[in-house]
Amino acid sequence: MTIKRVALVGGTHGNELTGIHLLQHWQANPQEIARPSLEPELLFANPQANRAMKRYLDQDLNRQFALKDLQDPQLSQYEQSRAKVINQLLGPKEQPRVDFVIDLHTTTANMGLTLVLGCDSPLVIGMAFYIKQQMPEAVLFYEPKERLEDNFLTSMGRENGLLIEVGPCPQGLLRADIYQLTRQACLHALDYLELYNQGQLPELPDEMPAFEYLDCLKLPQDANGQRLGMVHPQAQDRDFQPIRDGDPLFMTFDGQSIAYQGPERYLAFVNEAAYYDRNIGVSLMQAIRLKRPS
Amino acid sequence: MTIKRVALVGGTHGNELTGIHLLQHWQANPQEIARPSLEPELLFANPQANRAMKRYLDQDLNRQFALKDLQDPQLSQYEQSRAKVINQLLGPKEQPRVDFVIDLHTTTANMGLTLVLGCDSPLVIGMAFYIKQQMPEAVLFYEPKERLEDNFLTSMGRENGLLIEVGPCPQGLLRADIYQLTRQACLHALDYLELYNQGQLPELPDEMPAFEYLDCLKLPQDANGQRLGMVHPQAQDRDFQPIRDGDPLFMTFDGQSIAYQGPERYLAFVNEAAYYDRNIGVSLMQAIRLKRPS
Repeated sequence: MTIKRVALVGGTHGNELTGIHLLQHWQANPQEIARPSLEPELLFANPQANRAMKRYLDQDLNRQFALKDLQDPQLSQYEQSRAKVINQLLGPKEQPRVDFVIDLHTTTANMGLTLVLGCDSPLVIGMAFYIKQQMPEAVLFYEPKERLEDNFLTSMGRENGLLIEVGPCPQGLLRADIYQLTRQACLHALDYLELYNQGQLPELPDEMPAFEYLDCLKLPQDANGQRLGMVHPQAQDRDFQPIRDGDPLFMTFDGQSIAYQGPERYLAFVNEAAYYDRNIGVSLMQAIRLKRPS
Repeated sequence: MTIKRVALVGGTHGNELTGIHLLQHWQANPQEIARPSLEPELLFANPQANRAMKRYLDQDLNRQFALKDLQDPQLSQYEQSRAKVINQLLGPKEQPRVDFVIDLHTTTANMGLTLVLGCDSPLVIGMAFYIKQQMPEAVLFYEPKERLEDNFLTSMGRENGLLIEVGPCPQGLLRADIYQLTRQACLHALDYLELYNQGQLPELPDEMPAFEYLDCLKLPQDANGQRLGMVHPQAQDRDFQPIRDGDPLFMTFDGQSIAYQGPERYLAFVNEAAYYDRNIGVSLMQAIRLKRPS
């Protein structure tokens, strides 16, 4: 099945400036994203949140795209409404007009160039493998979901999509290195779709290393939900590094260590500012060999 | 003249969490800041901005403390009003109740532990020298102003104050390393005041290396004020490093370098997110030997 309409999305979170400025750049320089068989579209997903320089006004836009929520008129707050508009623009979700979605994000965590795969389709896994072939520093973050139940914006593509997540980048700030990594990865994604359409994909490996999302751990808090500590300096910035039973994970405000307890895992989203609203400190991943379905 | 009442201030900027959590910690652990001759007070300067997780609601609180502005009832927006309340709490500015102010900040720039000296008094310079003696990584940032004209909150102390600025720390985020550096520097500042009051100050050097603020440079923009670029990767994170005529300083969104033109300077506040509202990209400093007045 040919991929034609590709939505390049920025500003799904209003304080992640990289994608927003890339959209402006491509608006002025459409030749950079032009590919013979593709029709790229640019979507600034949450300009209102950007104007307020916040991630969101009412709730995280990138959790509003489950089909049942899009169909629920009771969900009427700002991002819930904006998601319904985006469903009209790109969707409808059950049978989307747009073939593929590339959504550009940054994280305050030290995650480098991370490709978030929200499904296990050959197209999406192949795209991630292709990008990692061109940019070996890329990390594959695997969290497959059923497309209609998936609440991420990338699930609005008929053939799903890819979320490009690059860090560390403070909110409300542009870093040239992060901007260039994001731009490059996105252009490789478009190249891949073009090669796919032409039937000229290069040889891709059968499997590649990846990290599968398992769980997240809360920052320490007391019975009233008052925060008692933060990520430990020895865990800070150690995204995609292993953590073992007994390793220091959190530190209380008076400087005491709190150890990780559990089986060996890998860290991700270590001290992501955006997750403080749910008091989440780190994500736990397992290292896997991701196979490319044929 | 004895120093007695010391205001420890956090949350002057609502999205700088380190000082706010230190205040909460000291509220619960007052023995940590207790010194025989001192009466420390804790001030959460802008809780409203913190609730909104923004630097400020209407304008930067840390630019509202010039005497003429405190006396101007026409300046009635939120932080202009809050400054007048703080003037009642700590001041009045012409003859403050509080002897000394220590104001705790973070920056997104890679400035490490920076001590901002807003005056050239022997007390304040001595304090900075003392802290740097204990913590040699500390950098002295020298920008002396006349106390009544100074619009920083630190100028609300009768004997002025010290601003402790630590980075890199994203807005809206706690880093344990930044928290511990800030805590340590603040405790040394209290120790210094105690030793000063007891007449037991240790030998301090006659002069120390410092950086004097000269100027700031704007991010590239077009005639309509539209941003055209960002800090160059080769300048990013190089706070307190030299920049020379011809060195790359900015990068346009299509990847072209823009060179610095001018005499050799040192960089500071490189890519500080909070200065995007005025489109400022970097500060320019000169390296000096700061003498301790006797």
